[in-house]
Amino acid sequence: VVKVIHGKYRFLCSGNMNEIKSVVLIGSGNVATHLGKICLEKGIKIVQVYSLNADHAQLLAQKTGSTATDNLQHINQAADLYIIAVKDDAIQELNAGLKLGNKIVVHTSGTAGLNAIQDISSRTGVFYPLQTFTKTRSLAWENIPVCIESSEQETLTILKDFAAKLTSQVFEIDSATRSRVHLAAVFANNFTNYLLDRANNIIGEELPFNILKPLVQETIEKAFDIGPEKAQTGPAVRDDMKTIDAQIRKLENHPEALELYLIFTALIHKKYHKGW
Amino acid sequence: VVKVIHGKYRFLCSGNMNEIKSVVLIGSGNVATHLGKICLEKGIKIVQVYSLNADHAQLLAQKTGSTATDNLQHINQAADLYIIAVKDDAIQELNAGLKLGNKIVVHTSGTAGLNAIQDISSRTGVFYPLQTFTKTRSLAWENIPVCIESSEQETLTILKDFAAKLTSQVFEIDSATRSRVHLAAVFANNFTNYLLDRANNIIGEELPFNILKPLVQETIEKAFDIGPEKAQTGPAVRDDMKTIDAQIRKLENHPEALELYLIFTALIHKKYHKGW
Repeated sequence: VVKVIHGKYRFLCSGNMNEIKSVVLIGSGNVATHLGKICLEKGIKIVQVYSLNADHAQLLAQKTGSTATDNLQHINQAADLYIIAVKDDAIQELNAGLKLGNKIVVHTSGTAGLNAIQDISSRTGVFYPLQTFTKTRSLAWENIPVCIESSEQETLTILKDFAAKLTSQVFEIDSATRSRVHLAAVFANNFTNYLLDRANNIIGEELPFNILKPLVQETIEKAFDIGPEKAQTGPAVRDDMKTIDAQIRKLENHPEALELYLIFTALIHKKYHKGW
Repeated sequence: VVKVIHGKYRFLCSGNMNEIKSVVLIGSGNVATHLGKICLEKGIKIVQVYSLNADHAQLLAQKTGSTATDNLQHINQAADLYIIAVKDDAIQELNAGLKLGNKIVVHTSGTAGLNAIQDISSRTGVFYPLQTFTKTRSLAWENIPVCIESSEQETLTILKDFAAKLTSQVFEIDSATRSRVHLAAVFANNFTNYLLDRANNIIGEELPFNILKPLVQETIEKAFDIGPEKAQTGPAVRDDMKTIDAQIRKLENHPEALELYLIFTALIHKKYHKGW
C-alpha cells in the first residue's frame, strides 16, 4: 500500500519527492573531494564529511561548507544520501560499524559487490564513477560514466536521477559487470600509464616527454573512433622482422621495456598472423 | 666562393632563396598523402607523385593537383625537395635506382639512418613526423613534432624552414636519437592500442567501448602533465594483493590479457616496492 501511495505522490510531485538534496561524504580522498565539489556546483548540499583522519575530514568540510567528524557515532542521520568513498579495505569496517537505518547508502568502488555495505542500511546501492581522480586536477563531470546499481527499484531510480544531475553518462550495471569494467580500466589506465613511463625512459633526458603527446592523443582518438582492433599498427602487425630485431637490440639496457616489447610483439603478431 | 656569394644573397633575400616551393612525393601511402595535403595548404606545390603502383600514384596526384609516374626514370628533376615516404624495405631499392644529382632528398622513416639514401643525391636529409597517419583522418599539423637531420648545414637550414612552415614542433636530432624516439613511439602507440584492444575485449559486448574514453583521455593528460612516474595508480602500486588476486581470477578466460596483467603487475610492483 505504501508503495502505491508513494507512487501516486511521486507522480503528482514530478519525482521531486525523492530528489537528493543533501549528502554526507564518508571518506575524504580524491573521489570524495571531487564528488563534494560537483555536488556543490549542482546545488546539492554537503552536510558532513566523515574521515578516520580528523584533519582530512576538516579540510574537505571547509572546502564544501560542511561539518567534519572522525566518529562514526556522530554521523548526521538526516541527509538524503550517504556516499562511501574510502579504500576498498575500509569498506568492511564501515559495514560493521556504521548503522544508518533505511537511509540511502552507496559505495563508489569498482570491485566491491553491492552486498559489501548491506549491514549499514536497508537501502544500499553503488555509485561508481569510471574515472581517475586527482585532487589537484579538475574534471568535466558531464562526460564521466557513472555505473549505478541497487537491488531495490526505488533506490535505483533515485540514484539514477542523482547521477543524471552530475553526468550525461549513467549506466545501470550489476556488480559482476562493474568489476569487469574496473578490470578493463586497470588495462586502460594503470598499464597504459606504465607504458608511457617506459616510453619516457627510452626517450631519455635529451628530448621532452611531450614530444610523444600528439601521437598518443591521436592513438587514443583513432582507437575509440574505428576500434583498437582495426587501429593496430607497428612492426608486429606488419610482420616486419627486420625492425623487430633491430628494436630488440636497442632495448638491451632497458630490461623492463624489453620484457614488454617481447610479449606485446608476440601477442600482436599472434593476433594478426598465424604465429611464428 | 660560391658559398660566400650564396650567403650574402641569402641575407639580402631574408632567406627566401632557399625556400621550398615545390615537392615531388615518392610514395603514395598515409604519410605521403598527409604531407601532400599539408604542403598544398601551405602554398607549396606538389609537382609529381611517384609510386610503384600507378593507380595509387594517380590517386594522390589527383588529390594534390600534380602528375603521376610509376617509373623512376621519369621523375621530375626540377623540384626543390624530394620526399621519400615509402615502407622502410623499399628505401634500399630507391637508393640504388634513383639518381637526383644535388637535389635535396629526404626520407621520412623513424628507423632508417641518414645514410640509407646517400646514393640518391649529394644533399640528403631526414624529415620524420612523429605521428600515426591514417588516410581518412585529418590531423592538426601545427602540433606534430617533426624530427629533421642532415649532415650538411645548408640542407639542414632549408629543411628547418620547410618543417617550420608545417609545424611549431621542429627537432634537430641525429639518427640514433631518432630511432630511440621511434622505439618509444612503438610503446606509446602500438602497445597502448593493443592494451585498449584487450580492455575492449574484457568489457565485452554489453557495454560500449566508449565508456573507457574519458578515463583514457584523463590518463594521458595526467601522464603528460605530472609525468607517468608520479601518475601511476592501481592495485600494483598500492600493493593491494587482494584486488590483484581477484583480478587474476577474473582473467581465466582471457589468456592474452592475463599474461599482460601478470607482467605489468610485477613490473609496476617492482618499481614502486621492493619486490615480492
